Amino acid sequence: MIKLYCFGESGNAYKAALTLELSGLEWEPVYVDFFNGEARSEEFAKINAMGEVPVMIDTEHDYRLTQSGAIQDYIVHLTGKLTGATPEERREVLRWTLWDNHKLSSQAGMLRFLMNFLAEDKRPAEVIAFTQGRLKNAYRVLNAALEGRDWLVGRNVTIADISCCGYLYYPEPFGFDRSDWPNIDAWLTRLSALPGWKHPYDLMPGSPADRA
Amino acid sequence: MIKLYCFGESGNAYKAALTLELSGLEWEPVYVDFFNGEARSEEFAKINAMGEVPVMIDTEHDYRLTQSGAIQDYIVHLTGKLTGATPEERREVLRWTLWDNHKLSSQAGMLRFLMNFLAEDKRPAEVIAFTQGRLKNAYRVLNAALEGRDWLVGRNVTIADISCCGYLYYPEPFGFDRSDWPNIDAWLTRLSALPGWKHPYDLMPGSPADRA
Repeated sequence: MIKLYCFGESGNAYKAALTLELSGLEWEPVYVDFFNGEARSEEFAKINAMGEVPVMIDTEHDYRLTQSGAIQDYIVHLTGKLTGATPEERREVLRWTLWDNHKLSSQAGMLRFLMNFLAEDKRPAEVIAFTQGRLKNAYRVLNAALEGRDWLVGRNVTIADISCCGYLYYPEPFGFDRSDWPNIDAWLTRLSALPGWKHPYDLMPGSPADRA
Repeated sequence: MIKLYCFGESGNAYKAALTLELSGLEWEPVYVDFFNGEARSEEFAKINAMGEVPVMIDTEHDYRLTQSGAIQDYIVHLTGKLTGATPEERREVLRWTLWDNHKLSSQAGMLRFLMNFLAEDKRPAEVIAFTQGRLKNAYRVLNAALEGRDWLVGRNVTIADISCCGYLYYPEPFGFDRSDWPNIDAWLTRLSALPGWKHPYDLMPGSPADRA
């Protein structure tokens, strides 16, 4: 049995959760109460010294792992699914996963937090505007890469697609509007039409509605 | 023959260049005049649509690749060097490489640019302070991970170490002081004592001194 420490608002956790779900593995979520500081607690530091979700525990193999992209790699290792068909395609999957970590999700996750989950009087306007500008470049790169293609790598959905979509289904505004980026928009629709796809707030416990 | 499009100031290019150098492969740098806009040119977009260095071209295998971590993976594939000894160790190498892309180099590279290579009257003070705060958490995680260890994964140097050190040898100030982080400091000394190690400004063409 695979357990995933996660919460609905985390797009990084979503990448791992959606990969588990689409791969058909048995898994269950373990809710981390991030907004009450649980990820920064001493107890949680024993689970992940990086102080972040997701954390995956495969109890059968007594194996613990953090970082969404590393968990995705492990799921591919267990199932042989959701990866490239050749060594070159698998390196291309890695390339997009690294790009996502560097340019897209790292910025989008932070920006969405600043714009929605920080108290209004604490939101840093200059950081928000600056990060929105950087993200526009990332959306441009992603939209161009999807021109004439169904998926980022090869002819099937891979963990590269699941990595890059991590923050792009959330309803809270952070300056990303699907209608501005037609190729991204069509690709998100294609992903969400896959059997087993779920929205982050349906796949993992916890959402802003719980705190309203 | 392997060609690497790079320039001295790019810590991301340095990760690829240092991996090539320490692996013993034959390679040569191709200078990209980033500070005169070459990376944003139409000509360069044909080489890398992401508009970034490094770009590696393996002329013998007619293979082009971008993203430092993907290039590192290819060098490991060619040489079998600088990686973990077991599948678990290799996944741990990936985990640290992803973490570096997400939390460390992506922030440090941008911050060093803002603090040193932007005109003084254009430097965004709030973004700089905010990013320095985020990076302190990253240094704390890295310093803790190196407690009692020579290298991040297993018993030997790997591409995970080379990824995480990408921006940490540069002399330009961006709020990182080796003496604040004794485990990082000792690890950087250990890395720079490896046979073949070179400073980024010695390994790749271009440095601030050229523009002075």
